Amino acid sequence: MSTKYVYLFADGKAEGNTTMKDLLGGKGANLAEMTNAGLPVPPGFTITTEACNSYYDEGEQFPAGMMDEVLAALAKVEAATGKQFGGGDNPMLVSVRSGAKFSMPGMMDTVLNLGLNDETRDAIAKISGNERFAWDAHRRFIQLFGKIVLNIESEKFEHIFEGYKHELGVKEDTAVGADTLAKVVADYKEVVKKETGNDFPTDAKEQLQLAIKAVFASWNGRRAKDYRRINKIDDKLGTAVNVQTMVFGNLGEDSGTGVAFTRDVATGERVIYGEYLQNAQGEDVVAGIRTPKKIAQLHEEMPEMYRQFAELAQKLETHYKDVQDLEFTIEKGKLYMLQTRNAKRTGAAAVRIAVEMVEEGVIDKKTAISRVEPAQLDQLLHPMIDPKAEIKVIGTGLPASPGAATGKVVFDPDEAEEMAKTGEKVILLRIETSPEDFHGMVAAQAILTARGGMTSHAAVVARGMGKCCVAGLGELKVDYKNQTAELNGNTIKKGDSITLNGSTGEVILGEVPLINPEVSGNFKTLMEYVNEYRKLGVRANADTPHDSEVARGFGAEGIGLCRTEHMFFEGDRIDSVRQMILSSTEYKSLEAQLANAKDADKAALEAKIARPSELYHGALAALLDLQREDFVGIFKAMNGFPVTIRTLDPPLHEFVPHDDETLQALATKLNMSFEEAKGRVDQLHEFNPMLGHRGCRLGIIYPEITKMQARAIFEAAVKVQKEGITVKPEIMIPLVGNVAELKLQADDVRAVAAEVFAKEGVTVDYLVGTMIEVPRAALTANRIAEVAEFFSFGTNDLTQMTMGLSRDDSGKFLPAYVEKKIYADDPFQVLDQEGVGQLVDIGIQKGRSTKADLKIGICGEHGGEPESVMFCHRVGMNYVSCSPYRVPIALLAAAQAAIADEGGAAIAKTTV
Amino acid sequence: MSTKYVYLFADGKAEGNTTMKDLLGGKGANLAEMTNAGLPVPPGFTITTEACNSYYDEGEQFPAGMMDEVLAALAKVEAATGKQFGGGDNPMLVSVRSGAKFSMPGMMDTVLNLGLNDETRDAIAKISGNERFAWDAHRRFIQLFGKIVLNIESEKFEHIFEGYKHELGVKEDTAVGADTLAKVVADYKEVVKKETGNDFPTDAKEQLQLAIKAVFASWNGRRAKDYRRINKIDDKLGTAVNVQTMVFGNLGEDSGTGVAFTRDVATGERVIYGEYLQNAQGEDVVAGIRTPKKIAQLHEEMPEMYRQFAELAQKLETHYKDVQDLEFTIEKGKLYMLQTRNAKRTGAAAVRIAVEMVEEGVIDKKTAISRVEPAQLDQLLHPMIDPKAEIKVIGTGLPASPGAATGKVVFDPDEAEEMAKTGEKVILLRIETSPEDFHGMVAAQAILTARGGMTSHAAVVARGMGKCCVAGLGELKVDYKNQTAELNGNTIKKGDSITLNGSTGEVILGEVPLINPEVSGNFKTLMEYVNEYRKLGVRANADTPHDSEVARGFGAEGIGLCRTEHMFFEGDRIDSVRQMILSSTEYKSLEAQLANAKDADKAALEAKIARPSELYHGALAALLDLQREDFVGIFKAMNGFPVTIRTLDPPLHEFVPHDDETLQALATKLNMSFEEAKGRVDQLHEFNPMLGHRGCRLGIIYPEITKMQARAIFEAAVKVQKEGITVKPEIMIPLVGNVAELKLQADDVRAVAAEVFAKEGVTVDYLVGTMIEVPRAALTANRIAEVAEFFSFGTNDLTQMTMGLSRDDSGKFLPAYVEKKIYADDPFQVLDQEGVGQLVDIGIQKGRSTKADLKIGICGEHGGEPESVMFCHRVGMNYVSCSPYRVPIALLAAAQAAIADEGGAAIAKTTV
Repeated sequence: MSTKYVYLFADGKAEGNTTMKDLLGGKGANLAEMTNAGLPVPPGFTITTEACNSYYDEGEQFPAGMMDEVLAALAKVEAATGKQFGGGDNPMLVSVRSGAKFSMPGMMDTVLNLGLNDETRDAIAKISGNERFAWDAHRRFIQLFGKIVLNIESEKFEHIFEGYKHELGVKEDTAVGADTLAKVVADYKEVVKKETGNDFPTDAKEQLQLAIKAVFASWNGRRAKDYRRINKIDDKLGTAVNVQTMVFGNLGEDSGTGVAFTRDVATGERVIYGEYLQNAQGEDVVAGIRTPKKIAQLHEEMPEMYRQFAELAQKLETHYKDVQDLEFTIEKGKLYMLQTRNAKRTGAAAVRIAVEMVEEGVIDKKTAISRVEPAQLDQLLHPMIDPKAEIKVIGTGLPASPGAATGKVVFDPDEAEEMAKTGEKVILLRIETSPEDFHGMVAAQAILTARGGMTSHAAVVARGMGKCCVAGLGELKVDYKNQTAELNGNTIKKGDSITLNGSTGEVILGEVPLINPEVSGNFKTLMEYVNEYRKLGVRANADTPHDSEVARGFGAEGIGLCRTEHMFFEGDRIDSVRQMILSSTEYKSLEAQLANAKDADKAALEAKIARPSELYHGALAALLDLQREDFVGIFKAMNGFPVTIRTLDPPLHEFVPHDDETLQALATKLNMSFEEAKGRVDQLHEFNPMLGHRGCRLGIIYPEITKMQARAIFEAAVKVQKEGITVKPEIMIPLVGNVAELKLQADDVRAVAAEVFAKEGVTVDYLVGTMIEVPRAALTANRIAEVAEFFSFGTNDLTQMTMGLSRDDSGKFLPAYVEKKIYADDPFQVLDQEGVGQLVDIGIQKGRSTKADLKIGICGEHGGEPESVMFCHRVGMNYVSCSPYRVPIALLAAAQAAIADEGGAAIAKTTV
Repeated sequence: MSTKYVYLFADGKAEGNTTMKDLLGGKGANLAEMTNAGLPVPPGFTITTEACNSYYDEGEQFPAGMMDEVLAALAKVEAATGKQFGGGDNPMLVSVRSGAKFSMPGMMDTVLNLGLNDETRDAIAKISGNERFAWDAHRRFIQLFGKIVLNIESEKFEHIFEGYKHELGVKEDTAVGADTLAKVVADYKEVVKKETGNDFPTDAKEQLQLAIKAVFASWNGRRAKDYRRINKIDDKLGTAVNVQTMVFGNLGEDSGTGVAFTRDVATGERVIYGEYLQNAQGEDVVAGIRTPKKIAQLHEEMPEMYRQFAELAQKLETHYKDVQDLEFTIEKGKLYMLQTRNAKRTGAAAVRIAVEMVEEGVIDKKTAISRVEPAQLDQLLHPMIDPKAEIKVIGTGLPASPGAATGKVVFDPDEAEEMAKTGEKVILLRIETSPEDFHGMVAAQAILTARGGMTSHAAVVARGMGKCCVAGLGELKVDYKNQTAELNGNTIKKGDSITLNGSTGEVILGEVPLINPEVSGNFKTLMEYVNEYRKLGVRANADTPHDSEVARGFGAEGIGLCRTEHMFFEGDRIDSVRQMILSSTEYKSLEAQLANAKDADKAALEAKIARPSELYHGALAALLDLQREDFVGIFKAMNGFPVTIRTLDPPLHEFVPHDDETLQALATKLNMSFEEAKGRVDQLHEFNPMLGHRGCRLGIIYPEITKMQARAIFEAAVKVQKEGITVKPEIMIPLVGNVAELKLQADDVRAVAAEVFAKEGVTVDYLVGTMIEVPRAALTANRIAEVAEFFSFGTNDLTQMTMGLSRDDSGKFLPAYVEKKIYADDPFQVLDQEGVGQLVDIGIQKGRSTKADLKIGICGEHGGEPESVMFCHRVGMNYVSCSPYRVPIALLAAAQAAIADEGGAAIAKTTV
């Protein structure tokens, strides 16, 4: 049987239906569905996406038989309408529109009024009783066909029309009468002759054939290709072509055209929402020449039309069980539906609509869960400026990344990083940002730039990190040298507090109270549905009691990553850390000498080691007291939920001062010469710190540090447990690549636990596990599971190592890589399932081959990214852990993954 | 059946044999074998290694029944000798010796003369007619037993003996008579009483029991454990214990003792080689108190004994089909064999013996191949000083790493690296080295240090790299500040030429001609055997025509890695490279602007781009000419063998100057301000260059560079082929992690090839393939093989990424890791088969799942390391590639692996 390329919809019956989007495109499938549902759809037919793909496969030739099917369908449409295509007393005009599987609004081409020539124009003038309308349609047709099909620049036509308007002294197109339009048409035909060397085609079937080709061609137009790249739509899908009888909204005051949604897609409120224009064609609405009216006014102007439309709208929403995005035309008092599709909506609307439709009994909870795209929730999870606060806006830039933030201004990314380490909230102010500034952007609360648009580096990176950004504030004059900026008469110095509103672009002087988002109302209800279905646990990455509480508020079921080193920077703790580090080298070296020394030399060495030993152990003791209190706070905040605590991870050079002044002060304090201190700092330098002396490698060379941290954890746990609060510490050893490393560290941790429990007469349940973040750890996970009581995939570092890609340095080429489609996404945002994902899978399989019930989670940033969360569900993890503000996103993604597993409702992509 | 713990050898019959080394240890198995072969072995028995392991498993208790077996065996030995243990007229004395599976010379304990007490001493005095001998044996026994079994410090005994000698005014032990020895024995007994609280045990069976325990204990003594760690011997093997009738070489001038080899183990010459002492016990030879005589003298002094010994030696060599290491004792004109084992030998001897034994018809070629440990060949592959050269030795340090090297002195590792990049041969002179100096050591020809011994950092690292090193030259006074050193009155300034002989420790003023090793004589013959059996191909890593020729001379079958960037540093080429880099940023940025510019802006941009374009393309054109000539030279040198050329790999910042002066000169040349040039250099900085913008990532951002290199390759190939020489270029794209990267680069290479071939009217066969050095590449090798025509595993980087380990930085903790046995070896020396090896295996499986006959090799440094080469054979690679000087090692390892596959001769470890 030969392939069927053309699907008819006419006379209340269609050959297609809504499930055939792959073949008929979204528009074609829905025109068929509406026709079958008895809606007033102008008859027509759809040429399939297969025809489009054949067209390209066969060197831009229509597949054999396609045009025959087209002509046969055309004849049936003529029969259904009683009109004749290309001639006769009652000529039929058609529109030729693209229609891919996924909506690509405005990216492909459309030809309207096709079938017009001198003869049909005159017949239409007669039958409509509106000569001007006929000439105007003819003018529009030549211009549009000329542009789309014949590749003639629009300017060439517009120039002529504008000339006549100028001659007539009129501004509105509607003020140009039939006579003048006739001259315009004649001139347009000349343009076509001159530009193409041929007369404008008068044969309607030839016009149709050319228009179909043009629509096929627009699938590979630059706009369409760019759109697909950005929206990750497969180039191989192809577009369908819809050929449909024209109806006219511009036949007088009893005609009109409009677009509407069955609910408010901004808020989700259940009210028909949209706009229309009287006596106009669809393109007039798009062109924005006349301001459309609110749909409510249709109720007053044409009550019967409104009643019919509202009824059809409800019928369609009920039919599709989702909010519909509708296009309609009224031709001389008769309503036609031209399009329906599921409406795109904001995150807030998505949540409200999903929950209310459950409450209305339209959809079930599973469907509701699938109706909200997890990433959309991000919109609901940013801090906002307290509406009651009095604010002084001193300038407005581009709202480059939503949310609000307050902090002290810094001009230098290194300084931003330094200050952030001390716990200070900073806002990075730059003329523009570049990849070299990345670390400063990570450290900052928000970014403000003087240059660059919505797609500037600052804007793109900030959105990627979910961080507030105001970009391209041209009035901002930045003086890096003096570390000041001028903004509309206000001076901003380094250290001054400002507040940014990334949702509006406003820059506000001083600190302003912010309101943190919370889960309530419909959002809370949706999360309740989610918790009924999801199987994956969701924890948060949190380092402080405050963050722990925020995480609980968003529904986190524990802490999946508590980074102990963040605590090292707080207040003046860094002094003890630095004392520990600078004394360690000498202490360790003398300790080794002492171990191998002859009796005679021991006394001298013991005298020599006394001072470094005092400094080293003194610093450790000070840190023990501070860390113990940190853990007490976190254990109390998590009140019975598990808390995964990672032992010290970053290389020691991250903690030492790199400016001479601070180092001099430190040297003085430690009774050390500046040169000596400088020498020790220099010794810590590394060529590739990412692959250097960090993670468990620190704990193996400095077991005292691991033991100090273990002691702080267990002493805190005992203390809190004695107050009647359940404590579940999970001690996590980072950067393990070999089971022997884990064994050494786990032995130290367990020895300290035993000692503390014996002394306190109390036992606390705890686990010792490891991060799987080095490829070798995944590859040897069966061995590592012999010792580990849990795994947590550190996919940030696992990505860096598996792909050989430094996150800090990849800015120089990764954007080009994504653009060239080498990688579909930034692999630090979306887990690279093909590569890194394989290692995750191997690690899980091998780990569970040793311990069948091994608890496994993820604590990289991917733990809050929806696609990655779904991957974690599929590979059988027990939980994901992410930043507190992403917890609801992870919860929703987890529920969708569980529902997909059951073969439940497909996950709709409906992002605005 | 209960376990048998004791194996008898007596009366020409033994229960064990030479195959039972696991159970009886090497010594025990050979004593049994010699007994069965009818050699005159003093009777005795062996307690098994299983007994030792049981002893440890059961909390240091003998396994049940063991002592019963011992006593039963003892009774049989008594019967065989007609002597009585612990009493009677003819008392039997025994030795109790350790004997593990692998020889651990001097690492465990031995007790001699066991069975002595007052009664047996007197009986022996009577039966030997030598009272002094009996008292001396008793003295020796108490001292040795006291030390080994009772843990009494030797000094306590020696002090007494020395006191008597002092009193008598004699120096030699032999000058002390029986009367005095009797006093010594009495005093020794007092020492034992005082130190242990008990009398010295007089019951022979109690002595035996205690001595067996002591030998078991010595398995876990510190020396033994250290030895096993260094030599990678499993701690679980345990030691056997040999209890054997004592025979005495110190019963007069018709007695003696000696050690000998059946061939010269230094040169391999077929001549009995060894030493002996008349009227002495074995321990006297070891103690070095008297100077032993050459074995040849035995021929003169006791011709019959020599005749018998030579006959037995030949018998044993024929029996074992290998050179034997023998111990013998002559007791009153009767020859006893105490030990035989396969002799350790030098590399040169190993080769000669293996080849000559084939020629003698003793062994077959496969056995010969298995008799030479690949790593031993290293000794034959170092350059040496031309013996005819006149040299001025100005100092002698420790011969820390063999070979010789000549070069210019530098004091700073960075400078060493800089100078080496320009093609200069440098010698790094340091007070001592530390891990921070590693890159300078890599760059240097040789290393000279003032401090540090044979196991200092410099020595260990240099040996690891097969690089000449003289260490611990105390007379060398180094002045870093003025960049000079003083050595015995000679001043060495930076840039002065010196020569080092790492095999002797000599430092020589000026340049001295070196002789490069070559494959000739027996070595050549062995390589011919090797080539008959090996299946794996062996190529070399070579970047110059000279290195290519060296590689051919050693038997390389092609170049597996030609690093094009090394060529970039030669002479003043670096200027063009720098010009290319500094102009690229501006050129690329303007090029991008131009591509998106409106017509109106194009002229201005084109004017702006002219200068950077000229600089950029000018530099590329200059490099094209230079690289073309490089490749012509290499293709000619390889004369038909394949040449794998890697496109540019290192990050660009490795090429730019980092000192202001050079940069200023460069800026001036490029008509650029210093600040601008500095800014561009700074832009190139990376946090983790190992994971940064390098490898194919350069070629993707700068396709012109890849195209320039491809053009140089193909133009050279065409030129050489036109001269009638076959050329097989294999273009290798580095750091690929994703098939799309390879596709882009391969397309560029193939396009250039097509263009050059069309222009020249000649076609050259070539391949385009990739390095597999990023873990993701191995994981997605099935995809990559869709494009790649060959794979080459870059195991240096693959190790760094898979283990998360920066080679440059790991010096801070990797030595401790190897010491703590986290890793058995430095994974940059010996491939980590458990971790990295898995990825290699996955890469091969997946690659061949797409292309069954995919050519696969390795070009990391592991390609010349024997264990790693055998791994490469097992996983099915086609070839390994290594430095030219390691080619014979790889060839031998490949042959051994092929033979092992056939179940052929086991690979003997016989290193000296």
